[in-house]
Amino acid sequence: MADNIIPSFKAADLVIQLTSTPKIKPEVSTFGTIFTDHMLTIEWSAAEGWRAPLIKPFGNISLHPACSSLHYGVQLFEGLKAYRGDDNRLRLFRPMLNMKRMSKSAKRACLPAFDQSELLECIRRLVEIDQDWVPHSDSAGLYIRPTFISTEPSLGVKKPGHALLYVILCQAGAYFNNEAEALSLWADPKYTRAWIGGTGDCKIGGNYGCSLLAQYEAVDYGCQQVLWLYGDDHQITEAGTMNIFLHWVNEDGEEELATPPLDGIILPGVTRQSILELTRTWGEFKVTERYLTMSQLCSALRQQRVREMFGSGTACMICPIGHIVYQGKTPGTPAGRSHSAWRRR
Amino acid sequence: MADNIIPSFKAADLVIQLTSTPKIKPEVSTFGTIFTDHMLTIEWSAAEGWRAPLIKPFGNISLHPACSSLHYGVQLFEGLKAYRGDDNRLRLFRPMLNMKRMSKSAKRACLPAFDQSELLECIRRLVEIDQDWVPHSDSAGLYIRPTFISTEPSLGVKKPGHALLYVILCQAGAYFNNEAEALSLWADPKYTRAWIGGTGDCKIGGNYGCSLLAQYEAVDYGCQQVLWLYGDDHQITEAGTMNIFLHWVNEDGEEELATPPLDGIILPGVTRQSILELTRTWGEFKVTERYLTMSQLCSALRQQRVREMFGSGTACMICPIGHIVYQGKTPGTPAGRSHSAWRRR
Repeated sequence: MADNIIPSFKAADLVIQLTSTPKIKPEVSTFGTIFTDHMLTIEWSAAEGWRAPLIKPFGNISLHPACSSLHYGVQLFEGLKAYRGDDNRLRLFRPMLNMKRMSKSAKRACLPAFDQSELLECIRRLVEIDQDWVPHSDSAGLYIRPTFISTEPSLGVKKPGHALLYVILCQAGAYFNNEAEALSLWADPKYTRAWIGGTGDCKIGGNYGCSLLAQYEAVDYGCQQVLWLYGDDHQITEAGTMNIFLHWVNEDGEEELATPPLDGIILPGVTRQSILELTRTWGEFKVTERYLTMSQLCSALRQQRVREMFGSGTACMICPIGHIVYQGKTPGTPAGRSHSAWRRR
Repeated sequence: MADNIIPSFKAADLVIQLTSTPKIKPEVSTFGTIFTDHMLTIEWSAAEGWRAPLIKPFGNISLHPACSSLHYGVQLFEGLKAYRGDDNRLRLFRPMLNMKRMSKSAKRACLPAFDQSELLECIRRLVEIDQDWVPHSDSAGLYIRPTFISTEPSLGVKKPGHALLYVILCQAGAYFNNEAEALSLWADPKYTRAWIGGTGDCKIGGNYGCSLLAQYEAVDYGCQQVLWLYGDDHQITEAGTMNIFLHWVNEDGEEELATPPLDGIILPGVTRQSILELTRTWGEFKVTERYLTMSQLCSALRQQRVREMFGSGTACMICPIGHIVYQGKTPGTPAGRSHSAWRRR
């Protein structure tokens, strides 16, 4: 790289073009369907490095039809939220964890590096400009979606020479249609979400698109989402697009909160990490990152050792799991089927 | 689906808008960088079904920044070629195999179904309009890239309600920089291209983007591409973005042309299928779809039983493999290292 190429964009160079036609803010609807007035875009090219960040009115992006984000999935994203406190001040929830994970995904996707703090400052400015969109609520937040795509306009499968980093903001709303109820999961080894040597530990587009067919097959089995399994021993890995937690009495009779370890196929969720850190400070029960197999889970369900299962994620937060269909059967349901315990905490 | 929704677009409804400023055709350069004057676009929505196909001047596409092709890799593509015969007539190489595979990929990606023959007829019309771009050559062709992306403008991970099928045409050129030479491959289990229960048998974007990092790590090992391995026994699966063939004297002393079977992790290549069909009609040697491990290959290389290895694909056609780096070593080179035998056939 030539000396004159900027290694990262700078928030200090931010150019701001405000909209002259702000939208009327509708009632909060389904997750991720209503977007705010502005977006952040930052262009990169191998020849010229990063250009100045730009905040401009929300609108479509114009892409060369050959660009490798559309052909080879050279793309990644992040998800975080801005909340309005009782003091009316806005706060982002642990945003540097997202910036760090985004950098990791960029490395995996062969997209260029950037300064994490500079991006965060640009996002902070964007949220500030669209601050009226952050709900006046102690539970709802504004969803922030950083996105990073290749704009390389040619068809060879190669490291992109052009890229676009952009950030859009949207109403969070309810992630699942029937949010009041516990989620049902279809556990089947037919589809695999991620595998060792793949991209399951990064927030890369391909991980999600390839999950859709399984999600709809789950519906055929009367379930809402997939419980993703791995390996011949049917390890439990994730649920839908969430990390998964099991609050149970384990094989050794200990009360335990368990979630699969970050071994390369699990997304290192920010909510996951926060739950682990918080519950470890409580000291109320054992908190473990460990492998969990369907055989272990089925035994525990039959023996009524499962207090609760839940999924965690930025979009859904804490999502209780009601029942599981595995090998055509429902091996039992968690004892705390009202499921509100974890969500209330 | 309502009765009035068209199950597929029809070529008879094609609308054609010709460019008023045709491009000057440059010298053929790198693969997939120079595009022709026109493109085909066909829009779909769950509410209204397929719209009429449109051939229009080549240009950028305008996408909602939330669309799930850019976030979740809900996208797929195909690749085929048009050739000009000695008789000056244009021919597509086995295009219905591509249409069939595209339908299969669409099903896997939860994109809508279409009539394969209608799409082929639309492509035929597009090639006809840009026919001057097909090289006057007995070996070079015009590369055709059908692409199918979600244009769903919302962030929930779900089946798209909007999609765009488009087709662009480009100069094929040389796929690898040093086409005259044999390719070197880095064989390492660190990265996995595809896995059972994934999308490796479909032409879906995520399969390709996640291969880039491995490709550049191969360069660090002095190689040009990756030899993708699978499983604890290091099965040989694909090479770069190509199917792989081994022409050898097998463990039983038989002359054999072998390629891995279509077990769910191998892309069912059109060139692969054509090679198998052709060589089976020759009857010169055994032709087998079978598992091949690195251990078997290393033994064969050491014992000089390997006549040739090559990759196959529409873009690269037949690409001879020179040497392999595996566990830090080069286990030997195929006997026919001049590598022209298969390419000449």
